Amino acid sequence: MDHTWMHTALELARSTEGQTYPNPMVGAVVVKNGRIVGMGAHLRSGEAHAEVHALAMAGDEAEGASIYVTLEPCSHYGRTPPCAKQIIEAGIAKVVVAASDPNPLVAGKGIQMMEEAGLEVVTGVGEEEAAYLNRKFFHFIKTGRPYVTAKTASSLDGKTATATGESQWITGKPAREDVHRERRRCDGILVGIGTVLSDDPSLTARVPETGVTPARIVLDSELQMPENSRMLKDDAAPVYVLTNGPADAQRQRRLEEAGAEVVPVASGVKNISAVLDVLGEKKIVSLFVEGGAGVLGSFLEAEVIQEYLMYVAPIVIGGENAPGVYQGSGVSALQKARAFSLMKEETFGQDRKYILQAGE
Amino acid sequence: MDHTWMHTALELARSTEGQTYPNPMVGAVVVKNGRIVGMGAHLRSGEAHAEVHALAMAGDEAEGASIYVTLEPCSHYGRTPPCAKQIIEAGIAKVVVAASDPNPLVAGKGIQMMEEAGLEVVTGVGEEEAAYLNRKFFHFIKTGRPYVTAKTASSLDGKTATATGESQWITGKPAREDVHRERRRCDGILVGIGTVLSDDPSLTARVPETGVTPARIVLDSELQMPENSRMLKDDAAPVYVLTNGPADAQRQRRLEEAGAEVVPVASGVKNISAVLDVLGEKKIVSLFVEGGAGVLGSFLEAEVIQEYLMYVAPIVIGGENAPGVYQGSGVSALQKARAFSLMKEETFGQDRKYILQAGE
Repeated sequence: MDHTWMHTALELARSTEGQTYPNPMVGAVVVKNGRIVGMGAHLRSGEAHAEVHALAMAGDEAEGASIYVTLEPCSHYGRTPPCAKQIIEAGIAKVVVAASDPNPLVAGKGIQMMEEAGLEVVTGVGEEEAAYLNRKFFHFIKTGRPYVTAKTASSLDGKTATATGESQWITGKPAREDVHRERRRCDGILVGIGTVLSDDPSLTARVPETGVTPARIVLDSELQMPENSRMLKDDAAPVYVLTNGPADAQRQRRLEEAGAEVVPVASGVKNISAVLDVLGEKKIVSLFVEGGAGVLGSFLEAEVIQEYLMYVAPIVIGGENAPGVYQGSGVSALQKARAFSLMKEETFGQDRKYILQAGE
Repeated sequence: MDHTWMHTALELARSTEGQTYPNPMVGAVVVKNGRIVGMGAHLRSGEAHAEVHALAMAGDEAEGASIYVTLEPCSHYGRTPPCAKQIIEAGIAKVVVAASDPNPLVAGKGIQMMEEAGLEVVTGVGEEEAAYLNRKFFHFIKTGRPYVTAKTASSLDGKTATATGESQWITGKPAREDVHRERRRCDGILVGIGTVLSDDPSLTARVPETGVTPARIVLDSELQMPENSRMLKDDAAPVYVLTNGPADAQRQRRLEEAGAEVVPVASGVKNISAVLDVLGEKKIVSLFVEGGAGVLGSFLEAEVIQEYLMYVAPIVIGGENAPGVYQGSGVSALQKARAFSLMKEETFGQDRKYILQAGE
């Protein structure tokens, strides 16, 4: 039954996608005599961890019960006392853990604390699913940089416009609406200054039922961002303008008065590695790279794309001068071509969506 | 039960794919008292039609039986007496037909002949499936031109090579083997002279278990085809070299001595419409356009691609100068982009194959 209870805990975790930033999604189920007596999930940063909710619901029933938790209970005193300690104090007899803590400095410490207190601890149940669920958070904890999701929308032959530049719209409304749902799954949305100057996007995740909005990030080497840009007209989420440092002081001040935070990148914004370091410092756990094609090409060549959402309309545009999804020089050899695994396919109206993950 | 018996007849027809050229695939089933008493398919041009095989197997049981046939029985005296007449003479009581004859000059005449003889005739059972099965043949009969299938093999972003020209291999061995099976489903394989000069392909359908080999067709405006080209070294199938007319007489003679048939196209081989007329006269019912990207671009712009086989490797190559699947100028406006419907998807090793049909 361990897998069944853990499956429920994973479903609880999954239901919180997009609302736990910058924390991971975690679910917990307390089971006694073959019945669920408590369940919970971590709902919001700064609020109770999953185990605490589940133990609270279980109340006295926690005595002698088992707890199923998707991520190793924490062992450190942070905004809340350590979950491992609370599990011990509630009288739990058995703890089943899916994934251990991704932080190598604390991994295993929660488990150790509970084992030393005499609890039975089982690990690795549902581990793969738990690791996939929190792949963005785990990547961030391990590298200090955001997990990068690239998005393109194109014809079958990889074109984003005709040779004459006509580009609205390649994909249909249902696919474009899905992009808004996908934006919400990330903490930051990144575009190049070219996209701002040509489309002036607001880059909000227009999903009516949610208040969660990712930060907007613009790569703007020359600080050309207009102060009246649409994304500066709301305070739905922070706007970070990354520019080549040192930045023009007057332009920087004008943009900051308009509500942006200007972040000079010493080695320049073409240095994607440096850009990701800066965004990691801003606690952007997962980054959604929307384009344009030049920015996507830079991320491709930097070999930092972890996930690729490819929307494809069932049309062929053709033409060697029609723009493609990735500009720049591309990979220099087929051996170096970025390899992906297809995780999922979906249909939106006439269009197809492919969710691909880096690595064969 | 009509649909069940017709389904069997359609399966019989389908089993002959690639071996009935230039005739359609046809299957027939004779049913008496709820049991199949005869079945057959047209196996080879010049041999018996499906109905004749099925009636022969049924023998005396045909008297008072029903026959299910995927294509309207013929009413004309050709290499064999008309099938409609043979069905009447065999004493068949009921005839169920999927698709009527695609030739408007004779459509309905076989049905009329049988109705006038007092047989019950039911039409339209399995019609859509039958029309799809013989879509290439039907297109040829209606237009006098081959049904065109375009094939590409590329990365996710529609590239066929890196910017430096490295192209072997994008897709893996299983996908490349499938291309050989697909070639066999057509009567002619077409490439540009650039492909001959760079790759020197034999263009045979290397499917071990079959002796069916499509004609090889080269678009060669300046008649640059070398006499020692690999495809001239076997006599597996005819080689047609289409060139701008009038052709250089000496080169033409040398190529013809090497086994090619040189076909001058008065308006030039860039005129895809004229090329298809010429191939129609050569009784090429279905044409497989392999490339290169220039030839594919010409077919795209001529709006003659009926079917598109897209093989995609799960890699991204990127780069604005990396060559794409369709060269040329492409469509001039999104409204004119060639629209396709996805009919089927398959996986070959790491690669995906998409079978798309023109039209939304």
